[in-house]
Amino acid sequence: MGHSLIHNLQANIVAVATIFAIQALPAVAQQAATGDVPIERQKILKDPGVFGVFTIFKLRHEWNNVPSAKRKDAAVEVKKLIEKHRDIVLVDLYLTRGLEANSDFFLRVNAYDLVKAQIFMREFRSTTIGKNADVFEALAGVTKPLNYITKDKSPELNAALGSTAYTGDAPRYAIVIPVKKNAEWWNLPAEQRLKEMEAHTAPTLPYLVNVKRKLYHSTGLDDTDFITYFETNDLVAFNNLLISLASVPENKYHVRWGNPTTLGAILSPENVIKALSE
Amino acid sequence: MGHSLIHNLQANIVAVATIFAIQALPAVAQQAATGDVPIERQKILKDPGVFGVFTIFKLRHEWNNVPSAKRKDAAVEVKKLIEKHRDIVLVDLYLTRGLEANSDFFLRVNAYDLVKAQIFMREFRSTTIGKNADVFEALAGVTKPLNYITKDKSPELNAALGSTAYTGDAPRYAIVIPVKKNAEWWNLPAEQRLKEMEAHTAPTLPYLVNVKRKLYHSTGLDDTDFITYFETNDLVAFNNLLISLASVPENKYHVRWGNPTTLGAILSPENVIKALSE
Amino acid sequence: MGHSLIHNLQANIVAVATIFAIQALPAVAQQAATGDVPIERQKILKDPGVFGVFTIFKLRHEWNNVPSAKRKDAAVEVKKLIEKHRDIVLVDLYLTRGLEANSDFFLRVNAYDLVKAQIFMREFRSTTIGKNADVFEALAGVTKPLNYITKDKSPELNAALGSTAYTGDAPRYAIVIPVKKNAEWWNLPAEQRLKEMEAHTAPTLPYLVNVKRKLYHSTGLDDTDFITYFETNDLVAFNNLLISLASVPENKYHVRWGNPTTLGAILSPENVIKALSE
Amino acid sequence: MGHSLIHNLQANIVAVATIFAIQALPAVAQQAATGDVPIERQKILKDPGVFGVFTIFKLRHEWNNVPSAKRKDAAVEVKKLIEKHRDIVLVDLYLTRGLEANSDFFLRVNAYDLVKAQIFMREFRSTTIGKNADVFEALAGVTKPLNYITKDKSPELNAALGSTAYTGDAPRYAIVIPVKKNAEWWNLPAEQRLKEMEAHTAPTLPYLVNVKRKLYHSTGLDDTDFITYFETNDLVAFNNLLISLASVPENKYHVRWGNPTTLGAILSPENVIKALSE
Amino acid sequence: MGHSLIHNLQANIVAVATIFAIQALPAVAQQAATGDVPIERQKILKDPGVFGVFTIFKLRHEWNNVPSAKRKDAAVEVKKLIEKHRDIVLVDLYLTRGLEANSDFFLRVNAYDLVKAQIFMREFRSTTIGKNADVFEALAGVTKPLNYITKDKSPELNAALGSTAYTGDAPRYAIVIPVKKNAEWWNLPAEQRLKEMEAHTAPTLPYLVNVKRKLYHSTGLDDTDFITYFETNDLVAFNNLLISLASVPENKYHVRWGNPTTLGAILSPENVIKALSE
Repeated sequence: MGHSLIHNLQANIVAVATIFAIQALPAVAQQAATGDVPIERQKILKDPGVFGVFTIFKLRHEWNNVPSAKRKDAAVEVKKLIEKHRDIVLVDLYLTRGLEANSDFFLRVNAYDLVKAQIFMREFRSTTIGKNADVFEALAGVTKPLNYITKDKSPELNAALGSTAYTGDAPRYAIVIPVKKNAEWWNLPAEQRLKEMEAHTAPTLPYLVNVKRKLYHSTGLDDTDFITYFETNDLVAFNNLLISLASVPENKYHVRWGNPTTLGAILSPENVIKALSE
Repeated sequence: MGHSLIHNLQANIVAVATIFAIQALPAVAQQAATGDVPIERQKILKDPGVFGVFTIFKLRHEWNNVPSAKRKDAAVEVKKLIEKHRDIVLVDLYLTRGLEANSDFFLRVNAYDLVKAQIFMREFRSTTIGKNADVFEALAGVTKPLNYITKDKSPELNAALGSTAYTGDAPRYAIVIPVKKNAEWWNLPAEQRLKEMEAHTAPTLPYLVNVKRKLYHSTGLDDTDFITYFETNDLVAFNNLLISLASVPENKYHVRWGNPTTLGAILSPENVIKALSE
Repeated sequence: MGHSLIHNLQANIVAVATIFAIQALPAVAQQAATGDVPIERQKILKDPGVFGVFTIFKLRHEWNNVPSAKRKDAAVEVKKLIEKHRDIVLVDLYLTRGLEANSDFFLRVNAYDLVKAQIFMREFRSTTIGKNADVFEALAGVTKPLNYITKDKSPELNAALGSTAYTGDAPRYAIVIPVKKNAEWWNLPAEQRLKEMEAHTAPTLPYLVNVKRKLYHSTGLDDTDFITYFETNDLVAFNNLLISLASVPENKYHVRWGNPTTLGAILSPENVIKALSE
Repeated sequence: MGHSLIHNLQANIVAVATIFAIQALPAVAQQAATGDVPIERQKILKDPGVFGVFTIFKLRHEWNNVPSAKRKDAAVEVKKLIEKHRDIVLVDLYLTRGLEANSDFFLRVNAYDLVKAQIFMREFRSTTIGKNADVFEALAGVTKPLNYITKDKSPELNAALGSTAYTGDAPRYAIVIPVKKNAEWWNLPAEQRLKEMEAHTAPTLPYLVNVKRKLYHSTGLDDTDFITYFETNDLVAFNNLLISLASVPENKYHVRWGNPTTLGAILSPENVIKALSE
Repeated sequence: MGHSLIHNLQANIVAVATIFAIQALPAVAQQAATGDVPIERQKILKDPGVFGVFTIFKLRHEWNNVPSAKRKDAAVEVKKLIEKHRDIVLVDLYLTRGLEANSDFFLRVNAYDLVKAQIFMREFRSTTIGKNADVFEALAGVTKPLNYITKDKSPELNAALGSTAYTGDAPRYAIVIPVKKNAEWWNLPAEQRLKEMEAHTAPTLPYLVNVKRKLYHSTGLDDTDFITYFETNDLVAFNNLLISLASVPENKYHVRWGNPTTLGAILSPENVIKALSE
């Protein structure tokens, strides 16, 4: 290993350390991560350093044999469980029955500490409906500060992202799409990746008014690099948005985009379980 | 991000907005989407902005143990359910038992509002036969105005498509084939895609007399870009049509074409369930 | 769309129409397709326009619990069902139990009308053994006149194919191998495909004496382009034949060749079911 | 089809016939194949023209509910079955429980006639343990004379293979690895394939002292080209051998190498079943 | 086979023998492998020539029906089994329920003799919880001396690896990621692979303080080349580490990296089973 290699290596270490420093969680999130403060919906959905656990369930056939009264109590049981843990996790449920082959509903659990999300999900698995459902897919990710379209690196796009508000009707649909990129992507120079992400971001701007988006990072935590989460009330606009995202060069680096794509109706947790208990 | 990139970006946004405007639903479809008007078969099968939900079912082994009388009532139960919802969904059933490994029947539900299709499918799942069947595949898509072979962009082909009527016997078979295209396709310039779609469309013209076709767009709604639906009474002609479609360059951009290909017999909903209840 | 494109398009339509004309069924097969004549084994196995439905079954564990007497009646039940439908379908059974992981037996049903094959297979599914077996794979195809190695296009090979008879012992084994080709294959010029098929056919000639072959076309009917069916009593010769077929350039265009490859013993339908009823 | 093509074709047929002649079974094996002589272990494991059927089983959960006494009788039942058929098949069992996810044990059945192996495996499926186990994988192949590293084509390597004996402890482990090669491999000129197989064979020589190997040919009989079978008592040496085999150009032609790789303990059939009956 | 080929061949054999010599186990490990000494945790986790068996379990639905008292005894039963075998295996358990779709817990068993690990795992399968769980994945590997980043070949990196200690909180999470490399990788010259592994190692240095790593070699033992095992208490750092590992050219040679990635909580064996028994 010659001098220039060692030099490159040291430069590399510094670069990695820098990246790490940039991506280290801000102090406020770290505090929140101690878990002693109650979960605020608006805050946890914006904070970096928040774990998101998506668990997609399919009811077992045995669910049909659970006595009707017990099935009906299931909604209250789930509601109480969510209340019990409202200090450590934020829980959302979505109804996929009638739209999907492999699932009937899914949960998104946000938590500052992954173990807390695990505790909630374990207890959910012991409820009446949890015991009568199989997990089709489970994905864990963590939120991070913006990586590419930052104020410094891409000021115009960053401003555009910040200045356009969702103005559609209350979203009735949520869509979850895992994304994994290939080795070529991750080996691109940072500037090239920035350029590609700008080309990815630009065509999404017109859809900010009717599609909400949120990103979780999953490399190493699961067999995906990202969990992308969308809410909308306009599925034709959403379809056009996804076609736009397919039509930029960044798409050539995808090895997973969906598989599964999961489309569900947004309802209160109680109403999701009620719909499944009829 | 330099000036030219910003310029490109703005052009891009305009272009996207234009595409979106073109693909926005005509006012009449939007009205229909309010759901207060009864579903007209001919109209909903031609309107853009209509959601199509395909659900492919395989009977569980337990179906054999359902008492014969109850099995026989299943056809009436399904017929009544369809009538109950005839104002919000158009429902077709197809019999695949005897032809397919993974299914016994499938449903196509057309609706102006996806939630309505979901409601119907959820209630279907609670019928006797729905409870005794597993979903093998579920695909959701939406109809859109013609994209490529329009009066403006490709007038001769557009005219040819419009002037050739189906003259075969009443179709006895329906075939559903999901289609997904790769990143290279979506990154082609619009003119190149138009050219490829013309080459795709031309060899299909001779088959318009004996194969009917219908297209649903699924990008982002499911792990496919399109759901292609065919009806025919001449399976040799259909086989030749599909070989023609395989033999044009556009086929090189497919990453999914089938998987599953589902071939079923066209029967009334009641007769499909009756055939499965024997 | 300029003049030359329109010209090409029209040429294309003519070409397609020509292909279609060539592949249209001869009148005699069309007559047979009316279904009023009894099925003649030798004829239906040679006619074009004949549908072949291959259904590969795996016995459910519950089969072990069916009372011995009822299991023993199963062979007679299947035999009677085949006799009942001998005017509309030709039925062969093969025993794979002991050789395959995913199946215990399979059926080949030949019929001039696909709906007739479906009717038979539906009734088979309602027999004792049909109710206690799961379908692992089902493939439908249709026979067509020779496409490449015709008297006109490749007279020497056509003659060689016609002049060499099977002289081996009665075949004890049947092998079914689905084949699907990629977009590059289907986009080759017809002359190039002819050349490749000649190179494919030549090395098979020495095996005509000990391996019988039959081809069904499946594009659009299933997720395969062809179903290739072989009978032999010499599995080493068959293995050498398949290595020969692997060793020509045409093999580079395969995206599916097997998956599954199914090897079964040729027995009378009654003896297949008897072997499974012990 | 021009003269030169016909000429090539005829040359091709001759070449194929020659290959076939070379690979035809020697008379002695053909005699053995009549099945009237008792199976000699050393002989059948060396003869060409011997069928090997590998069947990999996973116990069903129901096995736990079989009464202990009946479970204990299972070992004797299997032992008796093997004795009953000792004139037609050679049977080995291997214990994978504790090492593999998809299996608990596997059988290797060697027979001069494939139907005989099928008969044995069918009867095994009807034993107590056979009825309580699912087949995870079944692979059939046939032994052939050496193809590449023969006395004529590669005398030095052939001599080296012949002169090095296994000197390790009695092997406690067997490993089965299916291998399938791509179209590029099979289309290479024979001399090129010989060269690649020499490069494949050379690095294996140092491991002849502690790893035994055996090869079955499967093209057309199953979805693999080869079944490679190894015995060793030194798994680190075996791991190094497989890394050596991965590190030659021939590896670039593999489309299947494992999937599954199955590692089991070598025990007497009775002891394998006893271990599973505790 | 000409002179130069023979020469190359002989050189090759010498090279292979040399590699083998380097990778042969040091005497001390060989002694330990006799199994007569009690297992020391720190030692076995550092020794080369140690087998690691990872078995990932998913509870069967029937587990819910096991009487509560018996479920509660399961933790003690597992604890006793581990104590019984503490002279032959080191056993760790991890809780994945609530985080993963396909598993609820997994075991890592370290042993100097693979048969000992198999014996333990077979007995575990016969415990109450073992009988009520399915194996989702099982992977076996063996530890070896460092291959690339040795004192001789890469002294600076070797020193850096040796001088940086883990200083984070006690790890609460373990992650298991199987890795398989393609034929191109294994065919690279040794110097090129060394260079790539240096580029792979360098960016990991900053993470030594908060992520622990351990490597098992699996080529030929399973359908993977390596089992990589990580422990951490900082999942954001771990996510950044894995992104760093994705961003070096070596990643281009991966054909499997995960599938499955398994993330579990580190708890005592007793506490893992207790958590699953609630």
